[in-house]
Amino acid sequence: MTKRSPLAPDRFPHMPAVAGVRLGTRACALRYEGRDDLFVAEMDAGTAVAGVLTRSQTASAPVDWCRKALMGGRARVLVVNSGNANAFTGSVGEGAVSQTIEAARDVFSVEPGEVFIASTGVIGERLPVEKIVAALSDIRAVFADTSWEAAARAIMTTDTYPKGSARRVRVGDTDATLCGIAKGSGMIAPNMATMLAFVFTDAAIAPGALHVLLSSSVDRSFNCTTVDGDTSTSDTVLLFATGAAGGEPITDPADPRLDDFRAALDDVTLDLAQQVVRDGEGAAKFITITVTGAEHDAAAKNIGLSIANSPLVKTAVAGEDANWGRIVMAAGKAGEKVDRSRLTIRVGGISVAEKGEAAPNYDETPVAAHMKGTNVSIDVDVGIGEGEATVWTCDLTHGYIDINADYRS
Amino acid sequence: MTKRSPLAPDRFPHMPAVAGVRLGTRACALRYEGRDDLFVAEMDAGTAVAGVLTRSQTASAPVDWCRKALMGGRARVLVVNSGNANAFTGSVGEGAVSQTIEAARDVFSVEPGEVFIASTGVIGERLPVEKIVAALSDIRAVFADTSWEAAARAIMTTDTYPKGSARRVRVGDTDATLCGIAKGSGMIAPNMATMLAFVFTDAAIAPGALHVLLSSSVDRSFNCTTVDGDTSTSDTVLLFATGAAGGEPITDPADPRLDDFRAALDDVTLDLAQQVVRDGEGAAKFITITVTGAEHDAAAKNIGLSIANSPLVKTAVAGEDANWGRIVMAAGKAGEKVDRSRLTIRVGGISVAEKGEAAPNYDETPVAAHMKGTNVSIDVDVGIGEGEATVWTCDLTHGYIDINADYRS
Repeated sequence: MTKRSPLAPDRFPHMPAVAGVRLGTRACALRYEGRDDLFVAEMDAGTAVAGVLTRSQTASAPVDWCRKALMGGRARVLVVNSGNANAFTGSVGEGAVSQTIEAARDVFSVEPGEVFIASTGVIGERLPVEKIVAALSDIRAVFADTSWEAAARAIMTTDTYPKGSARRVRVGDTDATLCGIAKGSGMIAPNMATMLAFVFTDAAIAPGALHVLLSSSVDRSFNCTTVDGDTSTSDTVLLFATGAAGGEPITDPADPRLDDFRAALDDVTLDLAQQVVRDGEGAAKFITITVTGAEHDAAAKNIGLSIANSPLVKTAVAGEDANWGRIVMAAGKAGEKVDRSRLTIRVGGISVAEKGEAAPNYDETPVAAHMKGTNVSIDVDVGIGEGEATVWTCDLTHGYIDINADYRS
Repeated sequence: MTKRSPLAPDRFPHMPAVAGVRLGTRACALRYEGRDDLFVAEMDAGTAVAGVLTRSQTASAPVDWCRKALMGGRARVLVVNSGNANAFTGSVGEGAVSQTIEAARDVFSVEPGEVFIASTGVIGERLPVEKIVAALSDIRAVFADTSWEAAARAIMTTDTYPKGSARRVRVGDTDATLCGIAKGSGMIAPNMATMLAFVFTDAAIAPGALHVLLSSSVDRSFNCTTVDGDTSTSDTVLLFATGAAGGEPITDPADPRLDDFRAALDDVTLDLAQQVVRDGEGAAKFITITVTGAEHDAAAKNIGLSIANSPLVKTAVAGEDANWGRIVMAAGKAGEKVDRSRLTIRVGGISVAEKGEAAPNYDETPVAAHMKGTNVSIDVDVGIGEGEATVWTCDLTHGYIDINADYRS
């Protein structure tokens, strides 16, 4: 394992139990030795589920299955393995999914459509599913002792630290909890921006409402982040609501009783998405790009992602060079309207370019000082309209090449 | 200057004079010391011109000017400088273009609309146009002695070698010549794929026909190459036809007398485009990606460029790892139709994946041997239709980071 990202948070957050959710992890030696690589969650009967999956045309067998199972809106078991993506494995891969579902059905006495599966790791190699089946048979034995951190660690691949986020929320008159874990550090781009993220709550929310809340939240978090512009075959975000906190399930996503939950969910997904970026392969700097003045919000997001995905911008940040000419270039190539004569760029809050040329009396010293920090902010106004968006990325360093010219992911 | 790319051709090609074209270069110390950084071509009265320019929304002042001047279809003078892109320089930048045109008009007694300008180098810094104006005043003095190679060298920035290509052609009953030079090694992506390329011929072809021939040729050459997916503010390809070889100008682009010319032009643009890729910043391997079985040719090109622009594919090639899982991923994220169950991938002509899974009895040894060479070929069939395309790129190495975390381009 490579060393912990310099952008990692100090510690894994305190995360409480979520009523109606039981966690277990196991070491199956699917690829990694001496660490857990299987994460299982069992949820109470009646748990609602919503999900957002990769738009890749070469999605993995588990993604195909989740897409089908999400139609039912109900979940009882989640099985996640790391080390092998079970992607591009043909009918054998589909068979591995079926075997996992069968095993879960036997152990937990659930319907097949209530079993959700995710796999992350190497593409194109056969998943040793028999190891997963064996581990499932006695997974209940570890349910009492498994922490969120252990779960977050079990789903890691090239990640350098486990990622979790939790919030307490009020839903109507009820206290509830929201806990999420995520993994991912390369092959990170919109649709989806992380490989895997799982969020659990004990709030009572119906599947339809849950889906609306999750889609909107993902659009403003995972889908606003990028490490390398590469979209995975396995990207999966699932949100489970057990309802164990009590009350009738809320069915209207616009219900004001969900205001606090909605905000907390946005916090958790953004926190997880940013943690994934902070673990970007080889990342040494965390970059926040805010675009304003675009034709509409979607245009602002496209321009932001064009800047965030530009290798020339990312290497300039790695080199601590406030090379705003490359930002101009990247804004210009996004395919969205930009008024060159009104284009304004700030780096670290300091104006570097205004109205289509270098800022008058531009002093590079404070900008260079900002670039030396680990958090770099870039603000771009493109002078067309009212659209705005913020996206997050990391720099492109020798570390990225080291990791990816070697690791088979 | 960094050392010559390992993918560079052995030597600059032999390139004959083109009747009706006079070349000159000068050292103006615009940014570089001790080398020529200005290239001027004077062409006979009546020379036809066609051009393809960057689609960037933050195009440079010279690009804006060329777009206007191309409407006239006639050219007498081309002025190109390296070291400064005169991009994002506001009204001062437009002024620099006007001053260059004025100077050229005085020296060569031509109309302003017959003067074409291109600038390449740093974005956002004022162009010291007075140095160009001074150099133009006596540029004719060097016209007798300037070679194509000198011209190709004068327009270089981070290029590690000068790029030229020439062909003899028959146009109807006339012998003619086609000579092109190009520069570019970073910020290379479709629309346009090179920063600057200039092609000259003494064939007699009218501007309208010239435009059709050039657009089609660029689509199959420069627009099929990528180094880093970053599109420049300055990308310019111009084709000049002096007509000095004799005969009435041909006005129909489909005229069979142009068959040989069309093929030779395609040869020259592809040769130049590939030379640009071979000089990709940090490139150690030249990658040819052929996509077949796509919904249509444009879809095949998109899938090819998605693979060619994938940092994970490019780093795998740099690491000499036949990691075809990343090729599956990149094909899947292109947004074009892919039949996963029929997807077939060959590396170095050897089947690595067939019908949605690893090739039966796949032996990695010959594939690994192929990956160790400097020319890597990837063939992907996506099993949908008849569309096909070939694109070219290079690997992503530590050299790219070295160059771009430092050089201010």
